[in-house]
Amino acid sequence: MLAFTGSRLDRADNDRADPERLAGYMNWRARLLALDGLMPGMDQAGALAWGTLADAPEDAELVFLGLDGGKPCFACVPAAGDAAPRLANPAVWQAMASLTPDDLAIYGGARSIVDWHARHRFCAQCGGTTRIAKGGWQRECNQCAASHFPRTDPVAIMLVEYDGRLMLGRGKGWPEGRFSALAGFVEPGESIEEGVAREVLEESGVKVRDVTYIASQPWPFPSQLMIGCHGYADDDALVVDETELAEIRWFTREEVAASLAGDGPFAAPPAQAIAHHLLTWWRDR
Amino acid sequence: MLAFTGSRLDRADNDRADPERLAGYMNWRARLLALDGLMPGMDQAGALAWGTLADAPEDAELVFLGLDGGKPCFACVPAAGDAAPRLANPAVWQAMASLTPDDLAIYGGARSIVDWHARHRFCAQCGGTTRIAKGGWQRECNQCAASHFPRTDPVAIMLVEYDGRLMLGRGKGWPEGRFSALAGFVEPGESIEEGVAREVLEESGVKVRDVTYIASQPWPFPSQLMIGCHGYADDDALVVDETELAEIRWFTREEVAASLAGDGPFAAPPAQAIAHHLLTWWRDR
Repeated sequence: MLAFTGSRLDRADNDRADPERLAGYMNWRARLLALDGLMPGMDQAGALAWGTLADAPEDAELVFLGLDGGKPCFACVPAAGDAAPRLANPAVWQAMASLTPDDLAIYGGARSIVDWHARHRFCAQCGGTTRIAKGGWQRECNQCAASHFPRTDPVAIMLVEYDGRLMLGRGKGWPEGRFSALAGFVEPGESIEEGVAREVLEESGVKVRDVTYIASQPWPFPSQLMIGCHGYADDDALVVDETELAEIRWFTREEVAASLAGDGPFAAPPAQAIAHHLLTWWRDR
Repeated sequence: MLAFTGSRLDRADNDRADPERLAGYMNWRARLLALDGLMPGMDQAGALAWGTLADAPEDAELVFLGLDGGKPCFACVPAAGDAAPRLANPAVWQAMASLTPDDLAIYGGARSIVDWHARHRFCAQCGGTTRIAKGGWQRECNQCAASHFPRTDPVAIMLVEYDGRLMLGRGKGWPEGRFSALAGFVEPGESIEEGVAREVLEESGVKVRDVTYIASQPWPFPSQLMIGCHGYADDDALVVDETELAEIRWFTREEVAASLAGDGPFAAPPAQAIAHHLLTWWRDR
């Protein structure tokens, strides 16, 4: 199973829009996810720590995460969002490594949405202040009444294959030897498949065809939907986009397998990343 | 080919971030997409109309759409965005019907992005004013320097099958007899497949399994990425979510085929919608 998927919470979507039912959930049985800013609070066993609503500041904005075996679960919007939201930081990775898959999914979803609230306290349409609504699945402008919804950004991440070898790239600023699948945001006006073809052409100069979907994963830094794809190239001649990438190389199946096993020509992406899953899929194909 | 895909423009992504190259594109050869607010301007042949940059107001915010056979193409951000951005309006549908697929793709992409700019003149983080950047593929806050990026919202739209019959729903407020695939936004913290399962359970009470991806389409009202999927149900007992749907029914392959041909028990979705494509895929499966 992919990291950040498989949350045990029932989002109880319909209850969010029902103020009475939502108010009813804010009771003594409700659990509040322990967060230090955006970092997960952990108990002594290394699981996510939970408190009660009494732990929240009086003026706190509370997000309804869902029901856990009937128990309402909330998280508190922190004072500030992630200052560099596109990057995961080492402390988060360390915490992530100790969480069970189930806890990781709950933390990831909660982090994305409370971070969104922290960075959307004003209305993009008129500049007015906004307030939380529908249990945290909406914000409303106090001035122009515009509604705003949590954001999820689709990102295409792709394995491109030519003659039995796989194209992997090393991003600018990455350590020597670390390689992963190319990726980029799907833009307004394009399908997933068109996004894949554009990104690959832009970053590598390679034309890609026969794009297929493999798997998807939510990625909470800050809130991407990673859409994993595979495609074929007709040529292996590279024109590397040096504004984004340090290098691109083609790797054989044996090299990919060895690297996934920790003993190959490149450092593979971490197990939590969909890129790892995609490489494993390709190795076993 | 799905409507709104297949644009002939080269987005020339790398040039957006290069102020010199971008300034060089703003020349006498550049073309300006004719828009009346968000409505497409059309020439006498029913094609998209284009002018020159001289047609833009002096203080216009210009979005670089890409290169058309080397010619730089721009669109102007209108005074106001779509007031009801989730709904296409009849005048747009009429205009859409006369455009070639290629023109429709250019219009759809341009509409999404200029509408986003028109509704994002302020910084969601601090309330300050923002200015256009990177040829319209970014906005920057004049106050806190936050960067903002055009938004694309992933929506799962799904065919759910049980015992050779397909689940289709009629939305609240839709005319009698009009049915389509269920759909809903993929939320932070879930994969596409999890979004499909949650939406189906929430709207129909039906558990879905073995979800597979079929196709995707950009939808410019205002800027969705429609992700078409298929899944199987283990049961056909329905618990309809009456806050969102007027009714749900199960249709046989023959009924779907007849309805797509205009002579069946329900009015099928229009050819431009991915739902139409999905139904056709299922009919021919």
